[in-house]
Amino acid sequence: MKLYNYFRSSASFRVRIALHIKGLPYEYLPVHLLRGEHRDPAYANLVGDALVPALVTDEGAVLPQSMAIMEYLEELQPTPALLPTTPLARARVRALAQMVACEIHPLNNPRVLKYLTGTLHADEDAKNAWYHHWVRQGLEAFERQLVLLAAERQAQGLAPSVYCWGDTPTLADCCLVPQIFNGKRFGVNLDGLPLTMAAFDACMALPAFAQAQPSACPDNAP
Amino acid sequence: MKLYNYFRSSASFRVRIALHIKGLPYEYLPVHLLRGEHRDPAYANLVGDALVPALVTDEGAVLPQSMAIMEYLEELQPTPALLPTTPLARARVRALAQMVACEIHPLNNPRVLKYLTGTLHADEDAKNAWYHHWVRQGLEAFERQLVLLAAERQAQGLAPSVYCWGDTPTLADCCLVPQIFNGKRFGVNLDGLPLTMAAFDACMALPAFAQAQPSACPDNAP
Repeated sequence: MKLYNYFRSSASFRVRIALHIKGLPYEYLPVHLLRGEHRDPAYANLVGDALVPALVTDEGAVLPQSMAIMEYLEELQPTPALLPTTPLARARVRALAQMVACEIHPLNNPRVLKYLTGTLHADEDAKNAWYHHWVRQGLEAFERQLVLLAAERQAQGLAPSVYCWGDTPTLADCCLVPQIFNGKRFGVNLDGLPLTMAAFDACMALPAFAQAQPSACPDNAP
Repeated sequence: MKLYNYFRSSASFRVRIALHIKGLPYEYLPVHLLRGEHRDPAYANLVGDALVPALVTDEGAVLPQSMAIMEYLEELQPTPALLPTTPLARARVRALAQMVACEIHPLNNPRVLKYLTGTLHADEDAKNAWYHHWVRQGLEAFERQLVLLAAERQAQGLAPSVYCWGDTPTLADCCLVPQIFNGKRFGVNLDGLPLTMAAFDACMALPAFAQAQPSACPDNAP
């Protein structure tokens, strides 16, 4: 397989984690977002959204959208699993993943920040306040959900989660970790999020997460 | 089952469509977003994100996040299917769904528009320009992806799609249709999107979509 991606893209980082957890080798095809390489026809003609990441399957199909790619990898190679086994637990994990992918990350894409400063003439402070607002609000919601899930697990007689859900990393962790990296880079306050940050720390102790991080990517230029 | 939802919420509309396609009866529990009822502790304490929709399962579990809910419904009752059978085709459908759920809809939530006008002091014209920009850009990307998929199907000897993918509605249609409703309400230009609008029209000819639309909801106050 091949992965079109960019070292700093959160959505790319998600898929790299999933590939590393599953031990699937892939060719790293860098697409430099800040240089606009995703808009070059050579790339943009491959995927309708001209965004990264995109996975090229062994059959040559080009798959966009990180969440769809990770579900594909899960179906292609079910172990190590990124989703639990029961429909309810799978819904728990997918909801956490979507809380990052649908509620936090879309508001902080480079193209959105560019619209704020370029078209709406927001200054740097207003742009940063926007960024901090949505990341912080989203992570507080994420933490509240983890608290609810901890109570649910306790009521069911399940052990407390080590990661976002359970004792192995899931799609939720694949989404959370890049969002925390992104938040740290922009100096977002991460205090008062004990369950969230415990899951993050547990993930970062695993080689798969460390190997997928931006600083380990070949296009991480100094 | 019960569904906490709001007639005009796109994410709620997605889940209503899925429930109607599968013929699953549900109790409609209205949460009036504009009156802030989602922030009442009675609701906000049930789900970490205090957003709609949330599905209450027959066992009493409260599931947030529309995409996770629809995947849950698909696992709970696999037919009529909202996803195709092969991993590649499933990835195709999920990517289309995510193009709406992760790239278009999050930028046009009421809370985002409120931040634009309240905190960033954008005027009505600037707010509407923002809305139109992201919906139009997102739908153009969606259309390009449908064009790529049409070519892929032709190369595989498959019939042209009637809906977003194939001859039955999928998760992609559950996401597309509410986004088109929303776009129409805000007067977004929908010209030049022939495959997208053909899928929309095909969906709206089906009772499940018509029954789930905002005007058919009990909380659709005049």
